[in-house]
Parts: sequence; structure tokens; C-alpha cells
Amino acid sequence: MFYHSGKLQYEVRCDSPNPVFAKYLQQAIGGIEGEIRVAMQYFFQAMGARGNPKYRDMLMMTATEELSHIEFLCHAVALNLEGAPLTEREAAAKLNPVVHAIMGGLNPRHVLSSGLSAMPVNANGIPFDMSHIYASGNIAGDMMANVTAEATGRTLASRLYNMTDDAGMKDMLSFLIARDTMHQQQWLAVIEDLGGIEATMPIPNSTPEEHENLEHSYYFLNTSLDEPTPQGVWTNGGPTMDGRGTFTARDKAEPMGQKPDLGKAREHSGAQKQQM
Amino acid sequence: MFYHSGKLQYEVRCDSPNPVFAKYLQQAIGGIEGEIRVAMQYFFQAMGARGNPKYRDMLMMTATEELSHIEFLCHAVALNLEGAPLTEREAAAKLNPVVHAIMGGLNPRHVLSSGLSAMPVNANGIPFDMSHIYASGNIAGDMMANVTAEATGRTLASRLYNMTDDAGMKDMLSFLIARDTMHQQQWLAVIEDLGGIEATMPIPNSTPEEHENLEHSYYFLNTSLDEPTPQGVWTNGGPTMDGRGTFTARDKAEPMGQKPDLGKAREHSGAQKQQM
Amino acid sequence: MFYHSGKLQYEVRCDSPNPVFAKYLQQAIGGIEGEIRVAMQYFFQAMGARGNPKYRDMLMMTATEELSHIEFLCHAVALNLEGAPLTEREAAAKLNPVVHAIMGGLNPRHVLSSGLSAMPVNANGIPFDMSHIYASGNIAGDMMANVTAEATGRTLASRLYNMTDDAGMKDMLSFLIARDTMHQQQWLAVIEDLGGIEATMPIPNSTPEEHENLEHSYYFLNTSLDEPTPQGVWTNGGPTMDGRGTFTARDKAEPMGQKPDLGKAREHSGAQKQQM
Amino acid sequence: MFYHSGKLQYEVRCDSPNPVFAKYLQQAIGGIEGEIRVAMQYFFQAMGARGNPKYRDMLMMTATEELSHIEFLCHAVALNLEGAPLTEREAAAKLNPVVHAIMGGLNPRHVLSSGLSAMPVNANGIPFDMSHIYASGNIAGDMMANVTAEATGRTLASRLYNMTDDAGMKDMLSFLIARDTMHQQQWLAVIEDLGGIEATMPIPNSTPEEHENLEHSYYFLNTSLDEPTPQGVWTNGGPTMDGRGTFTARDKAEPMGQKPDLGKAREHSGAQKQQM
Amino acid sequence: MFYHSGKLQYEVRCDSPNPVFAKYLQQAIGGIEGEIRVAMQYFFQAMGARGNPKYRDMLMMTATEELSHIEFLCHAVALNLEGAPLTEREAAAKLNPVVHAIMGGLNPRHVLSSGLSAMPVNANGIPFDMSHIYASGNIAGDMMANVTAEATGRTLASRLYNMTDDAGMKDMLSFLIARDTMHQQQWLAVIEDLGGIEATMPIPNSTPEEHENLEHSYYFLNTSLDEPTPQGVWTNGGPTMDGRGTFTARDKAEPMGQKPDLGKAREHSGAQKQQM
Amino acid sequence: MFYHSGKLQYEVRCDSPNPVFAKYLQQAIGGIEGEIRVAMQYFFQAMGARGNPKYRDMLMMTATEELSHIEFLCHAVALNLEGAPLTEREAAAKLNPVVHAIMGGLNPRHVLSSGLSAMPVNANGIPFDMSHIYASGNIAGDMMANVTAEATGRTLASRLYNMTDDAGMKDMLSFLIARDTMHQQQWLAVIEDLGGIEATMPIPNSTPEEHENLEHSYYFLNTSLDEPTPQGVWTNGGPTMDGRGTFTARDKAEPMGQKPDLGKAREHSGAQKQQM
Repeated sequence: MFYHSGKLQYEVRCDSPNPVFAKYLQQAIGGIEGEIRVAMQYFFQAMGARGNPKYRDMLMMTATEELSHIEFLCHAVALNLEGAPLTEREAAAKLNPVVHAIMGGLNPRHVLSSGLSAMPVNANGIPFDMSHIYASGNIAGDMMANVTAEATGRTLASRLYNMTDDAGMKDMLSFLIARDTMHQQQWLAVIEDLGGIEATMPIPNSTPEEHENLEHSYYFLNTSLDEPTPQGVWTNGGPTMDGRGTFTARDKAEPMGQKPDLGKAREHSGAQKQQM
Repeated sequence: MFYHSGKLQYEVRCDSPNPVFAKYLQQAIGGIEGEIRVAMQYFFQAMGARGNPKYRDMLMMTATEELSHIEFLCHAVALNLEGAPLTEREAAAKLNPVVHAIMGGLNPRHVLSSGLSAMPVNANGIPFDMSHIYASGNIAGDMMANVTAEATGRTLASRLYNMTDDAGMKDMLSFLIARDTMHQQQWLAVIEDLGGIEATMPIPNSTPEEHENLEHSYYFLNTSLDEPTPQGVWTNGGPTMDGRGTFTARDKAEPMGQKPDLGKAREHSGAQKQQM
Repeated sequence: MFYHSGKLQYEVRCDSPNPVFAKYLQQAIGGIEGEIRVAMQYFFQAMGARGNPKYRDMLMMTATEELSHIEFLCHAVALNLEGAPLTEREAAAKLNPVVHAIMGGLNPRHVLSSGLSAMPVNANGIPFDMSHIYASGNIAGDMMANVTAEATGRTLASRLYNMTDDAGMKDMLSFLIARDTMHQQQWLAVIEDLGGIEATMPIPNSTPEEHENLEHSYYFLNTSLDEPTPQGVWTNGGPTMDGRGTFTARDKAEPMGQKPDLGKAREHSGAQKQQM
Repeated sequence: MFYHSGKLQYEVRCDSPNPVFAKYLQQAIGGIEGEIRVAMQYFFQAMGARGNPKYRDMLMMTATEELSHIEFLCHAVALNLEGAPLTEREAAAKLNPVVHAIMGGLNPRHVLSSGLSAMPVNANGIPFDMSHIYASGNIAGDMMANVTAEATGRTLASRLYNMTDDAGMKDMLSFLIARDTMHQQQWLAVIEDLGGIEATMPIPNSTPEEHENLEHSYYFLNTSLDEPTPQGVWTNGGPTMDGRGTFTARDKAEPMGQKPDLGKAREHSGAQKQQM
Repeated sequence: MFYHSGKLQYEVRCDSPNPVFAKYLQQAIGGIEGEIRVAMQYFFQAMGARGNPKYRDMLMMTATEELSHIEFLCHAVALNLEGAPLTEREAAAKLNPVVHAIMGGLNPRHVLSSGLSAMPVNANGIPFDMSHIYASGNIAGDMMANVTAEATGRTLASRLYNMTDDAGMKDMLSFLIARDTMHQQQWLAVIEDLGGIEATMPIPNSTPEEHENLEHSYYFLNTSLDEPTPQGVWTNGGPTMDGRGTFTARDKAEPMGQKPDLGKAREHSGAQKQQM
Repeated sequence: MFYHSGKLQYEVRCDSPNPVFAKYLQQAIGGIEGEIRVAMQYFFQAMGARGNPKYRDMLMMTATEELSHIEFLCHAVALNLEGAPLTEREAAAKLNPVVHAIMGGLNPRHVLSSGLSAMPVNANGIPFDMSHIYASGNIAGDMMANVTAEATGRTLASRLYNMTDDAGMKDMLSFLIARDTMHQQQWLAVIEDLGGIEATMPIPNSTPEEHENLEHSYYFLNTSLDEPTPQGVWTNGGPTMDGRGTFTARDKAEPMGQKPDLGKAREHSGAQKQQM
């Protein structure tokens, strides 16, 4: 069950409101790299968690923290929209001769739809959709998804930090960058806790070996007609990351299958007579 | 530039066509765990790759392999749809008394829209959308996204393997399981090639330290009112995965920010008079 | 800032797990009538609230309650999926001769994607998308949106109640029906608190009268060629709900505008020569 | 059955075409507050209407009017796009030095995709999707949805009115503001016609009382840890809006349920061995 | 401006209601092959039509007819849902032993969301989205899009005809098949009216020849490594359909471009140090 | 099976990078008129092709070519993003006084999400979704869909050509315009190869005549109340395009159906008591 405090997790100041930066900040709320995504992802992973309950609890605790991140980011968007022009006259007075440009640079829906406040959308105004909640029932796969989410999140926060010179915004973003650091660390720490990369690979590690055509499990396939196989750890003949095999490469990919031929179309199938 | 051979990468047989299994298989084509996703993800990562070009080439070679996976899976769907009922009469003749059930169990659009062939949709009939292509311009983040994609892919292939007893389908899926193993390995191998987890963390590792509020970078935050902090690698006081800090925990999360108060609504903002 | 307790807001029992009912229950999580929608809607309304802060606090408190509803519904879905068939063999053993039907009746992604747990999707498996979060910056409009959301929510909960005979599920749903009753009441109570329907209408009530062509504000327009104007409060000549006018009707709708003619296409516009 | 006149419902003039305002106007066509939405919503409610047919007829008549609104708004968008730059040269000639800004401020697809005419998209260029058609089969819930739609519609029209100083556009919008006033009134009038708020609440009013856990139907739940319960009509001990109860509040929300624990993962579920 | 008659364009009877067929019929309402699509497509093409106004009028007249098709199809869906089970008990009474199967075969939202009436969704329950409205401002391209839409529409209607043995449904569908025939014919007739295929090709025919690299305009490119060029009209050396060239083939596709190399990542770009 | 060369199909140069034009170019990658669409459309049509296999091979060969078009367009986007501002300071230094305008004119996600490279989105930043893949199992309908796709593609390429004065971009686009010409021709040539328009119409031509209510197959229906029937090939009494009938018109459209009346709502349907 959830509870709330009236105060924000972190203080939000905005010295020089910028409605175009408000549009950019939306990516951290409703973008695929944003906070709605991680909050909901950890929440749904927690609700489907099976096995040691400590991972479930950890997921729910961090889901709860992420809800607080959405909250202060929403406040930051609203503060950046303070003073945005609400009439053609306001726009013209302040901003001539680039009035059209400002009207174009804003997310129009910050004026038209939300009345100068945050929306659950990304920097293009596209609403977040929940297909991005990765919760597979496999804890190792989910941890990789979480490291990914926090990697994109910290990359985004760093890019936003670069795009503003407002001290308040920079301070808030430096907090987000820090928390994303920790969240990357903690999900990797779960992999360690489960025995480390080798013990958890390949994902899922419960697939019986007889379900896998092992002949094809450990070669890099070069499908290029004119480029040499790139050399690296994946071709060096060393052990694979799961400790079950040896890395090799196949320089020449050959088809192993048939020509796919579906024959003629059936009556009543809605095809043309010429196909029957 | 791309080229094509008339033969499939792997042979596809289907001994007992099953139109309901055809619906399930669609998840491996148009699901977020599926092959369109990885093909396009590696393709777009390759097109945005900066730095050592060997990683770009590797991404493009595997993107090309994934296109071949889409291809043979599409053929598998079509083979499973051979013989599906196209008329009420056919349905009734073969399948009575569960004719309605079969009509309900099929993806109706396999009959109505595609004329008994594969579609770029998932097992719920939802078309794949390209928001799921993760290509951030950060190679370490992208590799984590790729391991995630292959983890969900191998989990899916294993579950599909369990849900069929058709020998041809099982053979094809055991090949997919194998290739997903390799793809998990090779993307992890890139992380090794870049110096390993510690050297690549946190992502992005180019964010200047002064952009990060380091005070908040290494504690696990317990946001629960009644649960103890779960104990594990993330709380054991050991070094963090990036080698920059020490794992600790804060058992009691306190708000650090203000109450968010936006004051009164402005004239012309479309609010109610009562808000002004 | 948000906090969490390890216990659910309400107890969830499921005596006879039913994976098809799990699919139905998803509508209450990820449907437009569901709990993610109201949680996020009240949250975003709170974050954009201007004027008397008591409404903001009220919105956030109920947003927080709705998060707890998502939580126990997710648990209910997972409990209904206990024992769902994971292999063709399990399916055949238990459920013959309608094995295909059961495979068709399930949401396939409950097996393939989530590993027998809840997803942020509706009963058709369609992920919730945040375009459904109505938060306009106008408190009266938002209250109407909230009554609507709770009306659809209580309708849905009642229909789900009818579709199960599991005592645990019925008990949980009777709690939801009750809370949806209260939430309908409380949002209507806010309208009362703001002065009642007449004082808050039309929405927004801050639009200056000179922005409105009042000649067209109070007649019902009959656009039918052969049906009489339906008679009722809206045609009875009484005062309108906002107290500003009198209800009348126009039985014959006539065009007041011009024929829309865009003339010829411009050079460089990508049109056909025949249009230029 | 539908019919059409060649003339618009209302006259549309545009004295100074503005392609950026064309982008803004799109919200009134393809936005969730726009005319496609209400046209289709009333249409589908009419098609599912059961009970007294006068409400069905009323819905269809207003659906028909809304189709005419889409029509004249589309013409308004096209008129605002007259003269928009179609080549880099035109852009540079007219608009230097802000040529890039204008290219950025436009919806690019007004040039690239529609050839200077309206599209069924919102101000962010996002196509309208029909998930926003609320038609529940419950007339009281539907009326609330309709008041909501018209409230957002009139709020939008008012905001658009403020953002232009073109006399023709202002005239057209003042007509829309007026019609949205009436439509708010008429749907509220249907509630009156059905017996008023008390008689129609809670929605649906056909849910048997024994399906509702009435103990939980009439208290406001304070889920905050540090904020007092906001005081108002919803806490004043007066009768609830449905006349069935008395408003109270619970200041301290306590969990009533269990810890949600799903135990171990099953074999064949695609989980990790560590979860089994 | 639009008007309405209270009667349907065509009579709808349903002798034996079938809720699973109701789900199938939805494809003709909210599918990409359905009637919302053509109604809106012709409407938006009409609103953007430039050049001879007779084509605009024709488009609007047929748009209006398609609205009437949506209407009677919605009624057909509702009639097929009469008698669908609303409670577990009703389901069990009528349909045992396949009660779960029927619950699975239905679109659950026909019970849960619409209360036994039509929705603007396809046979998978996916809401129609307006990105499918093709209206390019080029009349020849639009006519091709319209023939395509009617081809998919008539194919769908034929497949639905096959999937029912209800006489009323078959009668209604035979009317739809007929009208789709005419609509295919009339859009092709517009091409004739504009001068025929040769005069309208290539689309757009207003692109100046110097904007086209004519060297590459008339050869079929064989990109296969092992298949011969398929022989047909497109390789027979005859004149092309636009009368401007001669069909040829290139059997061996060779890259003409460079290796795409983006060099190193810039500082502040959020990349890894290893890419810089 | 697919293969790749390290070189692009066509050379890409960009003399003066323009990040706003990069946004425009995205329409040719991820727009409905773009290259992902045609690549995937031809691919899925090939996978479902039944009848003479030469059409399947042709589809797959051109699908393969379109993959190469996506590739060089992605490179073009990245080249246009070289030098785009990554910090507020860079933006201010170069672009003052229109710094906000440039930040607004860019697709923010080219900076925030992709790190200056192409994305699978359109010019509004909306990800491509696979619902636009038309592959019906009817070869004639599919060919019409393909001509349509190439018509919109060539129209788009022409409009993009007009919007840039970069010589490299113009050169690349003149190649695309040429290839789109050929692709329009070749799909029309398939219609010829199948016997021409008359032999392939109406689509599908395998629908038995007794499934069609031929009385309604060949008249144009005037649904206007005040406009005369537009005159043209479709009303001239000549033979229809399928050679089966004669074009006529009905000037006065009359309803042929009943009033749609659904009666009262059922118990347990979630309706209001007032509807029962």
C-alpha cells in the first residue's frame, strides 16, 4: 500500500523559466528513458516476482522512489512554464520579432491542453505507453532491462544538464544523475547476488540444454559479403561469458533452409483467381 | 547495402499445423521480445555508431542475421495456418462442437486481413511499433539494451518451445534458442572488449563528476514504512560496480524538497475563476 | 514524496484460479476504465493544480490510494494465473478436448511475456497509454473527467463482479465498487464546494462573454431530416444549467457558411499538373 | 443514414494566414479535446443506446453537428496554410533571418504529407486514436463523459481564441465556444431529465447493493503521512450526492490486506533457476 | 454541413446472434480495411482538394455514404451481441462445457466496456487510429490509395461473408461487397477522367524532370545473390506505364556509395569515453 | 536469407548540415510514406505470396533494395546533425538571437535520445508502427497498395527536394525520386502481367457473383442535399473498369433500412435503471 508526504523528495528551483526547456524536460517524465517508465517497470516486476522475496521488496522500494522523481520533475516543468505567453499579444510584446518561432518552439499542448503544467508525454508530445514496461518473470532478464533503463536515464539527464544554464535545473539534474548511478549499481549488484554473470547466463538459465541446438550457440555469424569479421573478445577463442563454450566465428554465412514456397491460394481465401 | 538469397537461414517444417500456435508464434515476430525489434535495433545502433568502427560492423552483421530470423518465422506462421477454416462450414465440419471456440482462439486477422500468412504483430495482434528501438548513441547503454533484448528473446523462444509438441517447430525453436545464447554472449563480450563492467560504469562514463551530486550516488534508499532494508551486495559495504564508491543504505527516506505550490492561475489560462 | 507499506490495501483471495478471468481483470488495471488511469490522472491534476491548495492535496491523496488499487489487482491477476498450463502436455492433460480453445482463451502473453503475472495492459492485451490522462488546468473540467473515470470504473467493476463466481474475487470487487462510489461522490462534492453546477458553468467560467457568440449558446440543433426534435429539459424553455440563458431548439439546421473552395494547387506543392 | 450540404455550417475567414497557428488549430480537429472525438463519441453512444430512444436521437443529431465542426475547422487549417513556404528559396526570401525557425515552427507534415491541408492529428502531429471514444452502455456515465469532452473542448477553443489576433479566426472560435456551451448544458440537462444527480448516482445505479461493500462507500481516505485531511463538502458530515450516505473521513489509512507473496517460480515458466 | 436520417442506409437482420462473429465484424468498422477509414479518408481528401472541384464533391459524397456504412455495421454488431452471457451463471447454463472457451472467444470489452454494443476497434480490439488516413494533396496518389482501401474492404467483406451462415448477415455483406465494387470502379474512373494511367504517371507528374536522376528510373534491380531476375512486363523491354521510358533490368546490384563512417563522438554528446 | 555489403547503395554527401532538415528527412525513414514501410510491406507480401512464385521473388528483391534506402537515409540524417548544438552555450554562441527558436526547431530527441543520429520516427518524432504494412494475401490489392506507397514516397521525396538547397541532399533525393518512379511502374506492370485492370477487377476477382448484390454494384450515389452529381467517366453510361457493368448514378439517395432500435438494457449489463 502506498503513502505520500506533502514535500518533494528533492528541492526544485528554476531561476529563469524557459518554456522550450520545459518541452525538453518532458522526455525525463514521459520518454522511454524517463521516470514513469522505471516506476512502473519496477512496480510490475515486483508484482510478478517469484523466488527470494528480498528482490521483490527491493524492486518495490525503488519503484516508490521513482514515483517521487516523476513528482519533482513535474514541478520543474510547471516552473519552467511560468510566464509562457498565453495570448498573441503577450507573445508579440515580449518576443518580437521571433514570435512565430517561440510559438513553434513550445509544445503547443503546454498552452492548449494542460494550462501550463506537466503532461505524461515525451519531448515530442507523445504520451508514454506501457508497452515499455519490461517485466518478464525472469529476474536476470529483468535486471538487465533495469540497468538499460537507468543507463538511458542517466544519459538523458546528462544531456539535459548540458542543455540548460539554469542553476536550479542543474542542481536538480545532478541529483537525478547521482540516483541513476546508484540504480545502475544496485541492479548489477543483484546479478552479483545471484552468483554473477556466469552463473546467470544464458538467460533463462533454466532452459534445458536439450531444448537448445548447441551446435549454433557459440559462433559469431559474419553475414557481410565484403567485410572481414570484426575481431574482439567474441572471436578470440576464449571462454564464453556463461562459461559453457568457446567463442568462434563463421566467416561465411550459408543458408541451411529451403526456399519458402506456399503453393497456390485456397478457394474462399480472398485471393485473386490468378493465384489459385 | 543489402542482398538476399532465395533460401531460408534455417529449415522450417510443420508436421501438424495449428492456427492457435500461429497466433502464439507472432510474438516472436512482432512482439517486443521478437525479431523485428532486434533487427531494427541493431540496424539503427549501427547507423549511429561513433568510435571504433568494428562495433558498427558487428551490429550490422547481426542486424542482417536477425532479418533472416524474421523471414523463417514468417514462413513458420504461414505453415501453421495451412488448413485453417475459411468458412463457417469448414469450421463446423472439422471442429464441431467447439466451432465458436476455434473461431475465438484464432487471431481473426489471420483469416480476415492477411489471408493465412504472417503479420508484423504480436500474439495479441498488436502491430510492432518502433518506439522499442533503443539506440542511444552510447555504446555501453546500447549493449545492455541488446543483452536485455536477447534475454527476453530467449525466454520467449523457450516458452514457445514448451507450448508446442510439433517436432519441426521444436527444431526451429532450438535453433533460435541457440542463436539468442550467442547474441547474449557477444554483446556482453563487447562490454569486456571496452574494458569490462567497471571501466564502462556508470553509463555514460563521460559525464563529468561535477555534473553529479556524488553525495547521493551510492546509497540504496529504503522507501518502505514497515519493511527492513533487503540485505545483499547492494548494502554490504563493498565497492560499487563502477569502483568509484561503497555500497550503503539509508533506512529512512526523508523529503529534502519543498511543498510544490503553483499559486493562482493566470488570466487567459483557461482555468476557472475560482482558481484565480 | 511517496512511501510504501509491504501489505496490500485490501486482502486478495482466489479460491479457483481462472486464467481467462485473469485476462478480464486486466481491464481494471490497464484499461481506460482502470486504476493506472485514475492514479496517473489525479497525480497529474495535482501537479498542475492552481488556486486553493486543498484540492491539490485531495487529488494527491486519492492518487496515492489508486496506486494501492493497482497493486492488489495485480496480485489478483497473478493468483488467477497460478496453475495455468505452461506446456502443451499440461494443457492436454487437464483440458482435453478443448485444449486449443483454452490456449485461445488465455491472453498468450500471460504465458509468453510475463511468466504468469499481471501486465499494464487491458483485456485485449493493449498497453495503457497516457493520452488518457485528462488534466486540463481547469479544476471544474477535471472534476467532470474524474466523475467520468469513476463511473466507468464502477461500471467495469460491477461487470467483472457478475462474470466470476469466485468468493474471493467477489469480495475484492465489492471493495472496489464501494471505493468507486466514494470517489464519484467526492469529485462531485468538489463541484459543490466551488459553488455548485450553476456557479461553475460553463466550463471554463473565466472565458469573457465577448469571446462567445452568445446567439448560438442556448439552442439544441436538430440536424435530422426526418426525426422530430427530442423533447426534454433541453427544449423546455426553462433556464439553462449555468443560469445564463433559456433552453430552446432549432428544428431546421441551415448552413451559415460558404462552399469551401481551395482553388488551384501551387507549383512545388507535390500535386498533379491536372490540379494546377 | 447521413447526408451532406455543399456549404459549411459556419463561415470561415482568415485574414492573415499563419502556418504556425494552423498547427495549433489541429488540436481542435485531432486532439482529445477536438471535434473528431465528440463526433465519434456521440455516434457510438447512439449506436449502443438502450432505453428511451429520445436520448439516442439526441446523440445522433449532435454527432451530426460535430461532423460539420470538423469540416469547417479543416477549412480553417487549409486557409492558414495558404502561402506557407514550399521551397527553401521561398522560405529564405520571405522570412530571413529566421528561416530555420519557421521551418521548425511548422508542422513539417503540413508541407511534406498533406500538401497544405488539414490532417486528422493534434497540435503535436499525433493522429487521433479511437480509444478516446467513451461509450459505456450506461447513459449516466456517458453523459458525464460528454460534459467532460465539451468542457475540454470549450477550454481549448478559449485558449485558441487567445492565441490569435485574426478577426476571422476569432469569429469562428466564438461560434465554437458558444456551441460548446450549449453542448455542456444539454448533456447536463439529460441528467436532469433522468431524475437529477441524486437519482442517477452512484453510476451505475443498477448495481445491487449486496455487490457493494458499503462499509467503504462513504469515507474520504487520507493517505498522506504529514498532511491533514482537506476539509470541504466531502468531509462535512452532510449527505452524499447520491443521498444514500453521509460524508466522513479516515485520517489514517491502514493496510487491510496481506503481504503479496507468489512463492517460487514453476518449472517451464522461463524463470531463472535461482527463482525455483 | 452534415445531416442525418433516422433510418439505416440498408436493412440489417441477424437471425442467430453470434458474439464471436460480432468480434469478427468489428474489423469492418475499426480495421484498416474498414469503414471509419474510408469515411475519414475521403473526407480529409475532400477538405484538401485543389483543382477541379468536381473531384472534391465526389469525395465528400462518398465519404458521406461511408458514414452510413459505419452506422449499419454498428447495428449489426449490437444485434450479434444480443443474448451474450453477462454473468458466469448465464455462461455456464447455456454453454457448458465450453464456458471458458466462450469467455475467451468473445472480445471481453464487448461485455466489460461497451455493454453489448459496437466499438471503434478492429477484430483484435485495437482502436482505429487516424494515421491510416491517406490524403496527400495529390489527386492521383489519393485515387490509388482509395482503390487500395476499397480492395482491402471488398476482400474483407468477402471473407466475412464466408465466415457466417446467418442469412441476414450474408444479405448485408452482399450489399457491402457491391458498394465496394462500385467504389473501386469510381476511383479508377477518376484516373481515366484525368487522362488515364500514362498521363498521370509517375506520381506526382509535376516533379520537374531535372529533379530526377533519370538514369535510375527504369530498371528493375535484382538484389538476390542466387535467384534469376523474374521475367515479366517489367523486364520485357517494352514501354513503361508512364510512356517515358523502357523497362530493363539490372541483374547485379552493386553499391554506388561510400562506407558510412561517423568518426568519433563529440564531447557532451552522452557517449562513452571509449567512443571519443 | 539476408546479406550485407559495407558500402551504401548510393553516395551521400551533405555540404551544409542542417539539423532542422534532419527532422524533415525523418519522414522518409519512419513516415508512412517512408522506406521502413515499403521494405516491410514488400517483405510481408513476399512471405504470404501464393500463386506464381515470380511475384514473390520480385517482392523480396525490391524489399531488399528498400532496406538499402533506409540505410543511406539514416546516414544522411546523421550527417545533417553534425555540429548541432549539444549545450546551451554552443547554441547561444552560434545562433544568438534565435537560440530558443533553434532549440524549438530541432527534434529534441535527436539530441536527447539518439545522440545525433537517425531514429525510426517520422518528422513529428512519431515512431513508425507496423499497422501500415498492407499485405492482404490478394496480389492485385497488394499491387495497388504498393503503387500507393510509391506515389506517396515520390511525392514526399519531391517535397523534400524542394525544401533543401544542399547539393548533396538534392543529388541523393533525385536518386530516390528515380527509384520511386521505377517502383510505381513495376507494380503497375504486375497488374498488366496478370491480365490488366479489367481482368483483375473487382478485387478480389474470386468472389462468387452470388455473394454480391449486383443491383448495387454500378451506380454512383449522390448523398448531397444541394449539389448536383459530378459528371465524369463514372456517370457517363460507359462500361465499368471491370467490364462487367455500366456506370450510372443515383441522384437521390434514399434509406433502405429500418430505424435501429436496441430496446431496453438487460439486467446485469451495467446500464442505468432508467434504461431497463
